[in-house]
Amino acid sequence: MIQHPATARRTSAPAAVFDWLDEAAELRARAGLTRTLRARPAQDPVLDLASNDYLGLTHHPEVTRAAAEAALRWGAGATGSRLVTGTTELHAELEVELADFYGVEAALVFSSGYAANLAALTALTDPDTLIVSDAYNHASLIDGCRLSRADVHRAPHADPDAAAAVLAERHQPRALLVSDTVFSVDGNAAPLTGLAAAARAHGAALLVDDAHGLGVLGAGGRGALTAAGLAGEPDVVATATLSKSLGSQGGVVLGPRRVIRHLVETARTFIFDTGLAPAAVGAALAALRLLRAEPARAERAREVALTLAARLTDAGLRASEPDAAVVSVRAPGPEQAVAWAAACRAAGLAVGCFRPPSVPDGYSRLRLTARADLTDDQIDLAVRTLSVTAPLG
Amino acid sequence: MIQHPATARRTSAPAAVFDWLDEAAELRARAGLTRTLRARPAQDPVLDLASNDYLGLTHHPEVTRAAAEAALRWGAGATGSRLVTGTTELHAELEVELADFYGVEAALVFSSGYAANLAALTALTDPDTLIVSDAYNHASLIDGCRLSRADVHRAPHADPDAAAAVLAERHQPRALLVSDTVFSVDGNAAPLTGLAAAARAHGAALLVDDAHGLGVLGAGGRGALTAAGLAGEPDVVATATLSKSLGSQGGVVLGPRRVIRHLVETARTFIFDTGLAPAAVGAALAALRLLRAEPARAERAREVALTLAARLTDAGLRASEPDAAVVSVRAPGPEQAVAWAAACRAAGLAVGCFRPPSVPDGYSRLRLTARADLTDDQIDLAVRTLSVTAPLG
Ligand SMILES: Cc1ncc(COP(=O)(O)O)c(C=O)c1O
Ligand SMILES: Cc1ncc(COP(=O)(O)O)c(C=O)c1O
Repeated sequence: MIQHPATARRTSAPAAVFDWLDEAAELRARAGLTRTLRARPAQDPVLDLASNDYLGLTHHPEVTRAAAEAALRWGAGATGSRLVTGTTELHAELEVELADFYGVEAALVFSSGYAANLAALTALTDPDTLIVSDAYNHASLIDGCRLSRADVHRAPHADPDAAAAVLAERHQPRALLVSDTVFSVDGNAAPLTGLAAAARAHGAALLVDDAHGLGVLGAGGRGALTAAGLAGEPDVVATATLSKSLGSQGGVVLGPRRVIRHLVETARTFIFDTGLAPAAVGAALAALRLLRAEPARAERAREVALTLAARLTDAGLRASEPDAAVVSVRAPGPEQAVAWAAACRAAGLAVGCFRPPSVPDGYSRLRLTARADLTDDQIDLAVRTLSVTAPLG
Repeated sequence: MIQHPATARRTSAPAAVFDWLDEAAELRARAGLTRTLRARPAQDPVLDLASNDYLGLTHHPEVTRAAAEAALRWGAGATGSRLVTGTTELHAELEVELADFYGVEAALVFSSGYAANLAALTALTDPDTLIVSDAYNHASLIDGCRLSRADVHRAPHADPDAAAAVLAERHQPRALLVSDTVFSVDGNAAPLTGLAAAARAHGAALLVDDAHGLGVLGAGGRGALTAAGLAGEPDVVATATLSKSLGSQGGVVLGPRRVIRHLVETARTFIFDTGLAPAAVGAALAALRLLRAEPARAERAREVALTLAARLTDAGLRASEPDAAVVSVRAPGPEQAVAWAAACRAAGLAVGCFRPPSVPDGYSRLRLTARADLTDDQIDLAVRTLSVTAPLG
């Protein structure tokens, strides 16, 4: 038996069993990577450019009323797995309307977008599958790859040719090409047309996570697949969350009926998880109907992002060119990014702050979300605040 | 390069890419393992012994009202990661009250019990850790083991001596012993005192999933750790779900403050997941307060289970001896189990039905949950229905 240097700990006292967590915390603190929770009040005076409430629907009276009514009518919880007692007619209604809106045969709702991604990656692959996954993909896609029994290849970011080459070289009969449609940190769009072509050329399926595309991209916010002319294709599956543009909670897989049936019968995060709470189902349904009734909301979110990015660039800041509703602004380094975000907050503006190891490329930046309900005055205020607090460099 | 027999599929047409899913469905159908979703109406006339609403709180007016009020006041969704915009003062309040009730230093709420288990298993282990996991553990614990970077050993069911032997033999400095407190299919309790002793003898931490113990076991439903005198111990961590006894949705990790801090800073299913929707937070908080005010609910759930099991045994059926609120009844085989559950439903009684591969031991059975709000007449009706529909053999 190998004697490990830290074996002494094997006989540690109960109170010392978690000492190593304090050591890890100390290392994070020294690296400036401490994270803390800040609880916000119901009436938050801060101007919010940090949430993912892209269409401003989380507080919309029709959406919150639908959540309330669903809880009163259907109960506070789903009470069991979707396969046992956890499917209400409200869940079924939401699935029908989501599928119709997105332009696919069927939809399946999960308790989170995270769970939907784990389900899609594990159920749609097997040991005879090669997964080709974009290097910048979301944590939930990466965890789904790890949970799957497939071989996983991490491919260069947004590079259809590189993906095609890996697919061509494979020895597995099946393959799944996986990408975010809009990458969450920078808000840049994936080259979907190229990825779909690469997948098709090599008999692979395409799985896209449209968390940041649904409600923002495509006609009336129908998402990235509609924008790319790929909605409803027999070899394409999308996942999305109900927690961003739709202002609620939950996740969804959208695709061919055979894919949805397969998930119902085999996906562990579907079968062994309690169904989404009725309030969240009702809220998502109301938000979807609002988006249908007011399709300009999607356009407005994109427009706010473009305006915000242009004005920040004019002000001399290094803003990204937004493909959806997210704008990122480069900071000179991680400490400056943190200080900048803190200065914004002190001035009444909430922004996201990303730095290594949460960014794939090593660049620290602020992340701003362009909500459809931001007024021109609020955009002015945001640009001014970001400019006056900007670090030198 | 190895030529795989099914390589022909590499050039399959887009419409054929998912043909293998239909082949898999055909195999499941032939094995009698097809699963379908049944959507229930708001007013379901069926007597429910299939849900996990152990305390009958999902439809309690105070709980549904709290869900509705939370949605109206705090919005339909949390709008972002708990670390960005997704923590409201309501989340913080629930965490304080859960920790106090459970008798631990701190608590952290997740979007589901599944996510809480993935977080605990991945964040509290590393490549220098051995995980010893009960063979009958819940799917979410198993997936957490798979996602972790630790070595995983599957230990015989409910066997502290076997666990101790594996812990003693290990070469890793750290170890985590993992078990459900109440196993979900049969409702039998884990030997917690023995497991804790085994862990302590070998410097291991103990992680228990109290999904089916919280609200049912221990004084006033404080859970399995209180029942075993282990609540608040420095080397013990519990997870639980807000979706069973508390009638809502969500999950929680309960334990020492240093453990909770570590999860906040490192757990991927916490950091990269949208916070639990306010309605679910409010509902869980109201349910917790109701349980505090009416502690007899927990006792009543256990009492109903004991009565149900005794009456079923008297009627000649092979009922389990319940340790919590779940009773299982053996069926002669998988087809009979399915037919039995269907006959019950036709007679107005909803019961769960488990058969391979969803049972760890190969025995098919019905699963009945003893809700605290079942009346004696309803228990009578359930026993009669199960008796008259019982298969021979
Ligand atoms: C790209 C992407 N996919 C999936 C998720 C997970 O969705 P949810 O928060 O609903 O679990 C997120 C963020 O939360 C995301 O940004
Ligand atoms: C033992 C156990 N742990 C965890 C879970 C998952 O909890 P949730 O449904 O809240 O995701 C369940 C059932 O759903 C369970 O039975």
